[in-house]
Parts: sequence; structure tokens; C-alpha cells
Amino acid sequence: MDYVLPNHPDYRHLFVTKDKDGEDIHFLLTSPKTPEDMLRRRECYTVGMRTGGGVLVHCMGADALAAFSVAAQVMDSKLRTGYTERVEQYRRHLQKNDLALTGAITDVKGDRSLHPSQQKQHKDFYLRIVERQKDGIVVRGAKAHISASPCANELLCLPCRTHGEADRDYALGFAVPVNAPGVKLLGVEPNVRLYDEECEFDYPASHHMQPSESLIIFDNVFVPWERVFMCGEWQFSQILAYAFASYHRLFGTCKMTETLEAMTGAASLIAEYNGVQNVPHVRKKLAWMAYITETVQMLGKQACLDPMTEFGMDVMMPNRVAINASKFTYASNIHQMVQHMQDIGGGLTTTVPCYRDWKNPEIQPYIDKYLAAKDGVKTEDRIRILRLIKDLTGNHWEVDTIHGEGSMAAQEMFLYGSADWKKFQAAAKRASGIGGWQDNPVYGHLLLRDELVKMPPVDTSYKSILPPAKKQ
Amino acid sequence: MDYVLPNHPDYRHLFVTKDKDGEDIHFLLTSPKTPEDMLRRRECYTVGMRTGGGVLVHCMGADALAAFSVAAQVMDSKLRTGYTERVEQYRRHLQKNDLALTGAITDVKGDRSLHPSQQKQHKDFYLRIVERQKDGIVVRGAKAHISASPCANELLCLPCRTHGEADRDYALGFAVPVNAPGVKLLGVEPNVRLYDEECEFDYPASHHMQPSESLIIFDNVFVPWERVFMCGEWQFSQILAYAFASYHRLFGTCKMTETLEAMTGAASLIAEYNGVQNVPHVRKKLAWMAYITETVQMLGKQACLDPMTEFGMDVMMPNRVAINASKFTYASNIHQMVQHMQDIGGGLTTTVPCYRDWKNPEIQPYIDKYLAAKDGVKTEDRIRILRLIKDLTGNHWEVDTIHGEGSMAAQEMFLYGSADWKKFQAAAKRASGIGGWQDNPVYGHLLLRDELVKMPPVDTSYKSILPPAKKQ
Amino acid sequence: MDYVLPNHPDYRHLFVTKDKDGEDIHFLLTSPKTPEDMLRRRECYTVGMRTGGGVLVHCMGADALAAFSVAAQVMDSKLRTGYTERVEQYRRHLQKNDLALTGAITDVKGDRSLHPSQQKQHKDFYLRIVERQKDGIVVRGAKAHISASPCANELLCLPCRTHGEADRDYALGFAVPVNAPGVKLLGVEPNVRLYDEECEFDYPASHHMQPSESLIIFDNVFVPWERVFMCGEWQFSQILAYAFASYHRLFGTCKMTETLEAMTGAASLIAEYNGVQNVPHVRKKLAWMAYITETVQMLGKQACLDPMTEFGMDVMMPNRVAINASKFTYASNIHQMVQHMQDIGGGLTTTVPCYRDWKNPEIQPYIDKYLAAKDGVKTEDRIRILRLIKDLTGNHWEVDTIHGEGSMAAQEMFLYGSADWKKFQAAAKRASGIGGWQDNPVYGHLLLRDELVKMPPVDTSYKSILPPAKKQ
Amino acid sequence: MDYVLPNHPDYRHLFVTKDKDGEDIHFLLTSPKTPEDMLRRRECYTVGMRTGGGVLVHCMGADALAAFSVAAQVMDSKLRTGYTERVEQYRRHLQKNDLALTGAITDVKGDRSLHPSQQKQHKDFYLRIVERQKDGIVVRGAKAHISASPCANELLCLPCRTHGEADRDYALGFAVPVNAPGVKLLGVEPNVRLYDEECEFDYPASHHMQPSESLIIFDNVFVPWERVFMCGEWQFSQILAYAFASYHRLFGTCKMTETLEAMTGAASLIAEYNGVQNVPHVRKKLAWMAYITETVQMLGKQACLDPMTEFGMDVMMPNRVAINASKFTYASNIHQMVQHMQDIGGGLTTTVPCYRDWKNPEIQPYIDKYLAAKDGVKTEDRIRILRLIKDLTGNHWEVDTIHGEGSMAAQEMFLYGSADWKKFQAAAKRASGIGGWQDNPVYGHLLLRDELVKMPPVDTSYKSILPPAKKQ
Repeated sequence: MDYVLPNHPDYRHLFVTKDKDGEDIHFLLTSPKTPEDMLRRRECYTVGMRTGGGVLVHCMGADALAAFSVAAQVMDSKLRTGYTERVEQYRRHLQKNDLALTGAITDVKGDRSLHPSQQKQHKDFYLRIVERQKDGIVVRGAKAHISASPCANELLCLPCRTHGEADRDYALGFAVPVNAPGVKLLGVEPNVRLYDEECEFDYPASHHMQPSESLIIFDNVFVPWERVFMCGEWQFSQILAYAFASYHRLFGTCKMTETLEAMTGAASLIAEYNGVQNVPHVRKKLAWMAYITETVQMLGKQACLDPMTEFGMDVMMPNRVAINASKFTYASNIHQMVQHMQDIGGGLTTTVPCYRDWKNPEIQPYIDKYLAAKDGVKTEDRIRILRLIKDLTGNHWEVDTIHGEGSMAAQEMFLYGSADWKKFQAAAKRASGIGGWQDNPVYGHLLLRDELVKMPPVDTSYKSILPPAKKQ
Repeated sequence: MDYVLPNHPDYRHLFVTKDKDGEDIHFLLTSPKTPEDMLRRRECYTVGMRTGGGVLVHCMGADALAAFSVAAQVMDSKLRTGYTERVEQYRRHLQKNDLALTGAITDVKGDRSLHPSQQKQHKDFYLRIVERQKDGIVVRGAKAHISASPCANELLCLPCRTHGEADRDYALGFAVPVNAPGVKLLGVEPNVRLYDEECEFDYPASHHMQPSESLIIFDNVFVPWERVFMCGEWQFSQILAYAFASYHRLFGTCKMTETLEAMTGAASLIAEYNGVQNVPHVRKKLAWMAYITETVQMLGKQACLDPMTEFGMDVMMPNRVAINASKFTYASNIHQMVQHMQDIGGGLTTTVPCYRDWKNPEIQPYIDKYLAAKDGVKTEDRIRILRLIKDLTGNHWEVDTIHGEGSMAAQEMFLYGSADWKKFQAAAKRASGIGGWQDNPVYGHLLLRDELVKMPPVDTSYKSILPPAKKQ
Repeated sequence: MDYVLPNHPDYRHLFVTKDKDGEDIHFLLTSPKTPEDMLRRRECYTVGMRTGGGVLVHCMGADALAAFSVAAQVMDSKLRTGYTERVEQYRRHLQKNDLALTGAITDVKGDRSLHPSQQKQHKDFYLRIVERQKDGIVVRGAKAHISASPCANELLCLPCRTHGEADRDYALGFAVPVNAPGVKLLGVEPNVRLYDEECEFDYPASHHMQPSESLIIFDNVFVPWERVFMCGEWQFSQILAYAFASYHRLFGTCKMTETLEAMTGAASLIAEYNGVQNVPHVRKKLAWMAYITETVQMLGKQACLDPMTEFGMDVMMPNRVAINASKFTYASNIHQMVQHMQDIGGGLTTTVPCYRDWKNPEIQPYIDKYLAAKDGVKTEDRIRILRLIKDLTGNHWEVDTIHGEGSMAAQEMFLYGSADWKKFQAAAKRASGIGGWQDNPVYGHLLLRDELVKMPPVDTSYKSILPPAKKQ
Repeated sequence: MDYVLPNHPDYRHLFVTKDKDGEDIHFLLTSPKTPEDMLRRRECYTVGMRTGGGVLVHCMGADALAAFSVAAQVMDSKLRTGYTERVEQYRRHLQKNDLALTGAITDVKGDRSLHPSQQKQHKDFYLRIVERQKDGIVVRGAKAHISASPCANELLCLPCRTHGEADRDYALGFAVPVNAPGVKLLGVEPNVRLYDEECEFDYPASHHMQPSESLIIFDNVFVPWERVFMCGEWQFSQILAYAFASYHRLFGTCKMTETLEAMTGAASLIAEYNGVQNVPHVRKKLAWMAYITETVQMLGKQACLDPMTEFGMDVMMPNRVAINASKFTYASNIHQMVQHMQDIGGGLTTTVPCYRDWKNPEIQPYIDKYLAAKDGVKTEDRIRILRLIKDLTGNHWEVDTIHGEGSMAAQEMFLYGSADWKKFQAAAKRASGIGGWQDNPVYGHLLLRDELVKMPPVDTSYKSILPPAKKQ
């Protein structure tokens, strides 16, 4: 679909822009410089996801590309490396050839309590440089559950964690074509083992996502220097990982906006079909679902309206507090959304008849009669909504929501790390009469309490507080 | 399995008892009269579920049978009907022939905002009497997602709601063989479309549950009078439904004890395999999972230790507050259990390789190398635990947990209805100095505050509370 | 303070604007017409609250005034009444004399299950018209817990609920001076019975709020026609109440921003003072507190950036979804904020020594020695933060948070009422293959799935999904 | 009150037992040996708390005494110390003189990130031995917020944490009279600064608790050897602390049973008075409150019915899983209880008139008229319930609930530490086909799946699953 929308007259203006040669290129392959760019990026993602789950080959990869640009600038300025030029060169290559790309971040990790170089069985649990050659490097390792990889032309690889000096060979960023020698994709089993029309009926949301994730093996893959964007600069792994995370969470909020809209809508439709839309506890649950859905969407918008530049660079990144707040909102609430859908929909959200039953002419009349609900609603429509709920409440969606674009613990770490603690502490110090708030930009310049008009003495104004009682 | 355990030397003493003829009969087909009977019933259920999900053909049906006994006694005493004798007759039939039975409760319901006789499209959304004949009655309707129905010999049918007089034809309790003319079972699609060894590997929990639920059509089924246990006594629908609910929730807590134990254990194993078992937030989550698991189990036990008789009958029923508290604990927390398992297990809880990948000799070496985690743990063991988690966090388990044995709203209604409000209000009245608590059995006989020794006057004892401050 | 900030050189530009005569007037007494006006209104509130809880005599009243303007325009256009002119007249009176005003909304309500005119003991549980005279009306009733009333010059009264025709005498909007004959203020007891320096030390947040709320009795109060802004137009009670609610929730989010900032800061300071700032569960809690605080603030900002006009009027109102989402976020989470503060702060959050202990020279050395914590932090600073936490976690703040600016149930009703259900349902219908989404402005114009490029047939691409297993 | 109940004819049988000399002694001063003893202990606590908050001088102290007995036996058997005899000697002293006692556990702690001997400003942040003399020891330090200390005769001191060898001087257990030289009590400020009848009306729950907690300074206090029960045995601090914790949590659950009953009752009464008792969301909240209240009570009972002996001793202790589950249930839910009470009660839960207003004859008629609610309920009764709610939702109760008898983190640690992980892991291993469950006492002896009857092959039984669809 990534190639359909940019070529469609209604969406061309959104997805296509010009490079400096005046040639048409994909907007998502450009680097965002202004709030308007951020909003447009968000609009591309949102339109793609609402259309039906597209942009997958210009999302994770485009986010990785944007992160390479940020990290390259920082490394060049600190270490006089020449990464920026390489990244731009590569960006032009992608733009001119309009390639599909994805980002490969998550290493398989082995024992999480050990650093990459401390792992016991072997040292390849994190992707690493095994040899530096004249023309390039050789890498080995594996990246787990990488979305869109079967459809991509290019893989952009970067670290999923910060590194210490001992792990310098794991500080590694590069790009290779998916069909480079030594790259092996082990596709994940489909969400459901059904295909074609049957799958579309039974699992309408999973249907167009098969296949998607794969485990990618890098079995001594050669990468030429011009595609190497980090090579041992372990102090900068963090910047690369964080920049990617911020961009990719923006994509995440757009993806979830569509999913949450469908969930909230499905719950409201099944409530109506079942005849329970006016039951108070159902309305309360629906109100809550709408609240979460719109909060995710609004915080994502806020992240674009108020973006940040970091590390002295000119590239715009989503506001870190806002984008992590948006992501955390959906990750921490998705199971409650699922519970509400299942609660409102009833037992049929798991025992709803399937395509083979419904299409069976002997059985259909019974289903049609007995699984009807509100008069005027077709039984088939009710079944379709129940199938959608059954699909959306499956294991895949829950796990993807809490772990996609980073785990919940990662969100909490980001929220902790990006909160303005000085502002909060200044508020508390000022409120409790402790010094140290005076130089805070938000609280420091406010009027002192002494400058305010005092209230008159209290007790004279309210008779009821006065004596009668003998205060001992 | 229901027939294996009673015939196994280790379990015969638990499952087999004698009837008054001195013949061996299944214990679950007897009526509980003492706390010891309740505890034994619980033990049967628990052993069966821990063994692997059995007792299914002696659980819902046995609970329905117990409920028929309760309702029959009440109706006989109020209306001089002769149901008790019929139920006992039927009970003996089941005992002597050691038949497998299930209970069919949930009607398909149509538009939930309308009573049975108000439904628009047709009047069969709730199972009903369509004709009273000399030898028996003819019934029509459908019951949805009835567990164990494909394996049962007998179906015990009862109402799922209370009825008004206008709906007297829906106040209906009876039993028929599953193969009675006009009974049609439409099986629910299996949780997963895999079978045999592949299914056992990929979906170890769902595997032995296929097939289970079905939609049962009663297409003008004839029921002879000796199997009719309620026929139009609409005022007593509630008793029948409530008695069944109390018994069946006891089964539910036993079923969930095993499921929750497996969930909590799976989370703790994957934490260990991943090397995160000492991470504080992981331990906190595991502690919470153990807390929920044991609370469900202990409240279930409490329901048997402190059972109740109602309606002046001699049959023991589980304590209503305890059994509903147990059920509500798991129903309201299951999604959080799921979230914790997925959170601790990581993204592989959905993208874990499947049987066909693992058994593929070309692929296995890669998986074995890269999906290893903690040294000393076999990769296959890690994959098996992840498959278990993937299976247990699927849609079926969530829905079954919140809707099986009654919805969450039903629990709340029961908790509200069975709480001792007089005791609570007496506590508040006494505490706030309002009259009306004196006749409460718990709070009424306690000493009055005036009978207690008064504290000495306060201010003399603490210097620090005294003057310095100029109280204005 | 409301009169200090506008007269302070640093803040004059924010709080003071010109009327059409070119005279200086208070900005909060003007009607917002643009997003910029909304943002400025928000800035006034935020600066006032961060400074120390001011704007109280230009918040609820100013919000009521804005609501009068909206309702007057609607009534005039529908009923050809002349309310708009009266409201403007009154607005000019307030502007020219720079009066302090408050809004009186909440009736005492009596039995909540009965409409105003159905109340049993008397008919005055909701403020009502008892007589229509030539020059004006006479009103009777009472308004409960009205903030800032002791400091205000003017009271703006409006209904707190929608009305049916039978309750037309309760559909009533007007303004009177606080000292009008028959108006009686019964002040609420102060949060704490301490004053002056002792209060400032012991209850630093409550200190400058005493006295605040009062129960206002209207004992046959005469209101001249030129101050009557609704008189029996029962169909429009809802508009008046809703318009007020939207404006006032904007104030609420600004008020809570300061409170939440102080809470979050206090928790982070006491964590540091106690030496637990690096304990993982503490950081997780702090991250969550920052997340809630900033989400409230960002959603409030969003409500101004994307305001709405309703009823065809030119006055801007805060975006209803955003402002209610912001309010609901703090109302539903405040008790968790409190729990986290108390959890992190420890038992001393209630047993912290008070002013009289600390200032007692015999006791201070012991306290100073034993209640010290982290080296380098003054014991007094620790005590002050603990006093702030003790104060902020008291009953008043919790109740004010959940009930101030409308109860949680009211939020849920608003969230339900203002959600874009058509959008959500269109998402679900499109996703599940049901018709009816095609005319939705968000989902309707998107490309059809058929227009997208199809995935290639699945099975050929993944060896691992292919046979080995004997699919039966 | 502790001396009233044992001397009251109705309660003498419960509180008074005989020692081996045949003399009457207080039952709570004996050591529990059987489940019946545990249930009686629980009954004493529950009756005391429901009567009005008594047993305070036989609860924490009695729990400390019981813990001394446990630790003494263990130390004597391991180290051949003679503590058991000393403890029994002291127990007889208490019994014969019927003394009031309390336990002093919580040290002031200083910087929580440092061990006792690492503290910076001084070494007295944890109570410690400063000198070992011929006749006894000299101790220095302070214990924070110790309940009931102003009313007690004796103080039983024990450590609040486990110790390493470097902190051996902090491993310290002993008893002293409250009036021993060097012991100083700094009383905590009362919950409210009101006394006598006014306090009883305004703060009915806090009233009879003033004064209660104090900060106890041990300023070089001499303790004779016969009252020293641990002196440097750092390896056994944990046993002493844990034994105390288990006993004291039993008291905690009895205390909370009464508090929760009053809270739930107050919520249900104010719902009725306000006329909202049939509003669905109110009933849902009330059902939840009853559920929590009874769950706490039932789990506490379970802890007595299924007690444990540990360390090879004959003394019974509450079941550790059950008692911590009970405590965790109330600690983690108390803020939600508070929210529900405030939500149902409305804004008046903070702005309810106080005694001075109500007793003021000029004001009372207005209050009586306007704050009436449901017809037939006295306004004063409504005010009293609102005052109770205002009191119970204050800061003190929340903090006491989450920190009293140990913090939430301590509960989680206990729950983690006492859970039967082997059982849970056996369940998961068995379910997923991993070895290692065979030797588990719960899961190990169950039948193997192979011993069960297999289901028939699947596909033949359900037409609907069969072909029509052209499987890929």
C-alpha cells in the first residue's frame, strides 16, 4: 500500500514532495525540520493506518533513517567522523529509487541480566562486528520480531540498548539490502492459520497483516563502509536508540489511533446490536474507551505541535514527554480496553460462529435465527463485529501494544528521564516554604506571597467559628 | 477423564461413594449435606482440573442437578408440586447408569433490552414451552456456548434469568438425552486450527479442550413429564438460577485455581529463563500474581468451610459472599494477569516459533542458538513456556474467565445482594452516633462507649500542644 | 491577589486589556473569540494558580459570565428575548468597576432521586423563583460549597442541571451583590483550625485558602429585571449549565496543574531526602506522577488550541473532548497520586511533628537529631515537605478534585456525550466489512482495500509453514 | 478499654484464661498453640476493635511478646542462649501484674539507602547498644510513630529490619517500663485540634484516638539483663522481625475489619440518605466495597484456620500467605474505598457543617432546612454520617492503612517470599510439557495425560469444520 497512496491523486500531495533536484520523492524519506513537517509526518502515518495498515515499509525504516541523521550529526561534531555525508548519500539512494525499508532494532538478548560481551553460550546474542575489513565490516547476530521485513528492500540496523566500553563491538549501525548474502528471514507463524476469504471473514484485522514479523539472522553478513553509520562508538549508542525511539513512538500513536478507534467503535456497535447501549455500566465503559482513544490521539498531536531539537541539531524530534505519555497511555490501558470489549460483547466474543459455519447452507438458517439480536440489524453484521472483536482481543494485539515501540518499563524510564523534575520540585519548595525554587524558569519569577494582599484576620468574620465551645 | 479418575486406585476413594443400596456411585452425583461434602466436592473439582481439565461432564451438569434439588423442594413446599420425587428419580437414573451430563443455561437472548415474550423477530430467543401435551411438553429455542456438550449423554436445561408472569412459558427446567430428536449441536470452532502433536506443542492448554462449547438448538424437542422439573412456575426461576450459580461458581474457582497456578508459574519460569527474576518490578508483578492466585483458592475454600442452607432446605450451598468474592477476584483481575505475563515474557510471547519451525531441521539450529537465554536452560523448554503463555493469553481464556459461570455484572449483583448491609450500616451508625444499630447481631451487644474508661483530659499531658502560639 | 497581579508591572500585559472605549479592563471579564484568547485565558489562570491560588474571584464568576453570554445569544435567537443586551450591560458594569465575582451553581438538591418540584419536605432544595414582580423577581433556595464567596462582590447564579417543563421556576439565571438583602453566607469550617504562622508551617497549602467555600442561603432575595438572565426558559438550562461546565473545567485544569506539580515535586523531594530516589519502585511511581501531571496540562492546552463554537455563536469554548479528558484524568487519578505520595513519604506523612513541637526549644534538638535523613538536607526542610504532603493528602483536596468543576459521573457523561461515535463506528464497520462507513468524514474517503496491491499468495513464501505435519 | 472488656461479664470468658497456677490472666498474654487459640486471639482483637478501638495496649505489645517467644526458642536451640527462660519470666511478670504494653519497632532510619552503621550525621538512626555493662546494657536511638505508647506501662523493643554482621549492635530486643529513666515520649499532634463533645461530633472516629502515636527517644536508657531478649545476634533479627510482622498483621486485619465495615456502611447510608442507592454506578461501587471488606475478613479467618509453625517451634503463627494477602488487600485498596465514599457522598464530604455551626441556634434552622435530603431522615443523622466520612477519609487513616503493620512494599516482599513457587512452576511445567514437576507434592502424583482417554479424532464429528473452503 505504501506505493499506492503516493500514486493516488487524492493523497499524492501528502506523501510526495520534491528533493533539491526538483524530483518527486517520498515525504517520509525526508528529515523533519519544523512542527509542520512533524504534523505532516503524523498525517501520513495516520492516513496509512486508517486506510488499512499501510506505511509499514516507510515507518520503522523511516524512523531509523531519521535517527541515523541525528546520531551522525552528533558523532561528526564530537568525533570528526564523516557519518553525516554517508547517511545523506544513503538517503538520496533511497529517495531516488523509492525503496521500501524497515528498521531492525531488537536483539535476541539471551540472558537479560548479562551485558552482550558477558553472555555465556556464545557472544552473538546482540548483533556485533566480527571482523573489520578494508572495504567494510562483517556482522553476526539476530534481530527478533522485525515488522514488515518480508516486504522491505532494505534493512536499517541499530542497537536496542546503551553500551559500555566493553561492548564496543555491539555499538553498530548500518544498512543492507534484505537479500544480502547471509541475511535469513525466519517468518513468524501467522496470527491465524487461515487465508483468503475465510481469513478475511474470520479474522478481519489479522487478515491483511500476514505475514509480517520475522526473526532475522545475520550469518556473517558483509556491509560495505558506505553503509556503516556507527561502528564501535559505544558512547553514542544511547543517542541513536533514543532518537529512534522518539520517532517510532510517533508512528506507534498513529497506529494505535486507528486500532483504538476500531475497538471503541466495535464496542459501541455490539452494545447497540445487543440492546445494551443504554445500560449505565455499558455507557460508562464506552465513555472510558472514547477517553483513552482521544487522549492517545491528542497527546500524539501535542508531540508534533511542540517538538524538540536536541544535541544542538536542526532536526526536529517529537516532544519526548508528550510522545511517551501517549504511548504509555495505550500500552498501560490496552488490557482494560480488551476487557471492556469482551465484557460488553458477551460470551460470543469467543464462541461466535466462523465462516465455515456461516457459509454452510444447512447451518446458516439456525444461526441466522438464533444469533439475531436487535430487530433491524442483520445477523451477519452482528457476527462480523463479533469476529472483529474476537480478532482484536487476541494475544497478538495485546503483546504488540505493550511491547511494540518499546516495553512499558522503557516508557516509564523515558517518562522519568524526560520529566521536568526541577519544575516540579520548585513547585513543592515554593509551596512548603523551602528555598531553592527562585531560579526556576517557571516558578522563579512569580510574585512572592508577601507581595500579595493578606486576608483579613479570620475569626472576626465568622460567628460560627467563635467561642461557644470552651477550648481547653 | 471423568471416567478414568473414579476408576483409578489413587482416586477411587475420592470420586466414588455408595448409594443407599450399597452400590458404587459417582460422588458428584450426590447432594451435599455438610461442610465436609462441600470440601470433598471442591477436592474432586480441583484434582480433576489440575490433572488436566477433566470433570467436565460432571461439573456443570452436577451443579444443575444440585440446583434442581433445591428448587424442587421449595416448589413442592409452596405449591404442593411433586418435583422432588421426579428429581430424585432422575438422580438415581444418572447414578445407576453413571451417565455424563452437562447443564444448559445461557439462552441466546436476542435484544437484551426486551423480555423474552417482547422479542421482535420471533419468540424463541429464550428456550420455551411451545406445547403442553398429555405425556410431556414440546420445547423450542437455543442455548449458547454450552461446555462439554459434545461429550455428554444428558442435557439439563434451566433458565438463565428471573421471569415475570408474562414470561411464564420461559420458566422451564428439564433434562433430555443429547441425542433426543430435535436437539442439534453446532460446535464452536476450535481455539486453534491445529491438531495432534502439532497442537499439543503449539497450544498446550487449548489442545485438550477441542472441541468443547456448542450452540444447542432445540427444534421442537419433546420432553416427557418425568423429566420436567419446572414448567411455568415463573416465581421460582430465580431460585433455580441462583442455586445453580452458587454451585457452579464453586466449580469455577477450582478451575481457575489450576489456570492461575499455571499462569503464575509460567511467569516465574520465563522470568528465570530470561534472567530477569531479580528485577524489582518483575518480582513485584510475580508477588501480585501469587497473591491473586492464592486469594481465589482461599476464598473458594472458605465458601465450603462456611456453607449456607437457604429456603429452609437441608441441602448445603457454598457461602454466597465467599464464592462470589472468589469468582469476582479472578474475573476482574485476569486481564492484569495476562498483561503481567506478556510484560515479563517479552515480545516473544506472541512471536515465539511454532512446531513446524522448531521441527524443521534447517531452521532449528538457528532458533536453538539465537533464542537461547539463560545458560543451562534448554531452548526448547523456553519455547514451550512461551507457547504456553501465548496460548493462555489468547482471547478464549479471557472471555471464559470473565463470562464463564456468569458475567462480571452478575458477580457485582450477587455481591451486592448477598452482602450484610445491616452489619455495615450498624458499624457506621454506631461510629457516628446515630441510633438504629442496637438490634444488630454483630454490633448491637457491644459495650457502649460510656461504659469504657475515659481518657484523661488531654492538654495537660503534652507540653508541646500547649500555648507558645498566640491563638487569636 | 486578583487585584495584585493586574497591577504588577510584570503581569499587567497579561491580565489587562482595553475595552472599546479604550479603557483598561480585566481580560478575564472579556468574552473569548479566538484560540489566542483561549490560550491567554489559560495563561491567566495558570499564572494565578502557580503564584499561590489566586484568580479565585475572576474564575468561577468569569466562567459563569461567559456562559451567560452563550445562553443569552441562543435564547434571543430562538425566543426573541433580550438577554444579550442585559448580559453585555452587566459585563460592562463589572469591567468598569473591576468587581470581584463568583459563580453559584450547585444547589443543595435534597433527595437526588426526585426532580426539584417533586421534593417532599419543601420546594426550595433548588434555587427558584417564588414571585414575579413588576421590577424583578424574588428567589429562594440555597447553593452549596461556593468557592471564594466571602471575598466576592457579586454572585452569578445559574442552574446545576437540566430541567423539564414542570420545573420551569427552577430555570433561573441572575446576578446579585453578595450583600443583597436576604443573602446569607454560612462559611465552611476551615480545613484546619490553625491560623497565622503556625498554620503556614503546619498546613502550607490550606493556609492561604481559609476561609473559602460557603453555603449561601437566598432567603427571599429580590433581583431586578436587569440582572435576570434566564427566567423560566427551562429548555435552555442545559445550554447554560454545559457552557459554564466547559469554561470552568478549563480553570480546573489550570488549578490542578499547579497542585499536581507540587505533589509530584514533593514526592520527588521526599524520595531524595529519605534516600530512596533510586529504588526502582519509587522511580516507577515518580514517573507515573509526572505522566499524569503533564497529561493533564497538555490536554488542557489542546482544549485551547482546538476550541469549538457551538449553537452557531461566535464565542469560543474549550474543546469539549479535550477539556473533559483533562479533568477526568486528574479526578480519576488523584487518589492514586495521594497513595504514591504517602507510600514514598512513609509513616511520617501523618506523624510528622508540628510547628509547636518544632518551635519548642526543649524538643527541637531531639527532632533535629532523629528526624534527619539524608546528610546535607536540613531536618526542617524535610519536615516542611512532609507537612506539605500531609496537607495535600487531606480530605479536602481529594474531594475538591473529584467533585470540583463537576463529579466524575458528570465527566463520564460529558465524555460519552461529546465523543465522535460516528467516527469510531465507521472505523469498526470498515474494519469488519460492514457497510455504513462510507459517508463518514474521517473514514469515508479512504481508499478501499481493493484499490490496494494485494499481498502475494502466502504459503509459497515461508517454508516453515509448509507441510511436514500431516494436516488431517 | 483493655481493662473494661476482661472485667465485663459478657466478655470475661473471651479475654480471661487461667495460668498454670490457676490464676486469672489476660488471654492475649498467652502464647497461641492451636488453631483455636489463633481464632480466639482474632476474636479478642475483633471484639475490641468493633467496640471502639480498644485492645491497643494488648495488641502490638502482645504481638511483640509472641515474637520474642519464637525468636528465643530459635536462638536457644542454635546458640545455647537462655532467652526462652527470660521471656517466660517476663511474660509471667506481665500476666501477674496485668500490665499494659506496646511494641516499638520502627526506627527513624535516617538515610534509607545506608545501613545503620553507615549513617553519616550520627550512628543513632537505629536503636543500638552503646554500652554493655555488668548488670545490663545501655541503649540509644529513637522509635517513630509508636501506637498506644502514652497509655502503656511497658515498651517491647525489637528491630525493624534484617541486619548484617557490621550492624550487630543494632540487633537488639528488650523491654523497659515506659517511665524508665531516659525514655522520652514526643506525642504526635492529634488528628484534629478539637476535644470533648465538639470533637466527638466533628471527628467521631478520630475522637477516641487522641493522643495515640509518639516518637520515643531512648536517651542512654539502661536495660537490665533479665529484660534483654536479643543482644547482638544479628543473624536472628530477621526471625524476630518476621514473627512480629505475622502476628501484628493479624491484629491489622481485625482492626481493618471494623474500619472497612464502618466505611462500607457509611457509604451505603449516605447513598440512601441522598436518594441515590438505586443508581447503578452507586450499587456497583457499594458491591465492590462489600467485596473488599469481606475478603479482608475472610482471609484473616483463613490465616487462623490454617496456621503454621516455623523453625521447628511449637508456637502457632498466622498462615503467612493468608495474612499477608489480607493485609495487602486493604492496604492496596484503601484509597479506592476513600474515593468511592467521597464520590457517593458528594461535595459535602468535605464541606459538611461542623458542631459549632449546627449548635448555633441562629444557623441551625437554615442547615436543618437546606441540608435535609431524603424525606424521613433527620438532617442531623445525615450530617453525622458525612462527618464520619470526612473523618475516615482524612490523611491519618490512609497512611495508617498503607504503612501500619508494614508498608506495601513489605507486603509484596512477604507475598513473594512466602508463595509456593514450586507448586506454581510445577503447574506450568506440566501444562507445557517440560520435565521437573514430577516431584511436586501437589502436581507430581496426578495422572499423566497418557493415562487419560483420548478424544476421538476431531474432524469427523463436526461437519462445519470440514472442507467447503479450499484450504490454501
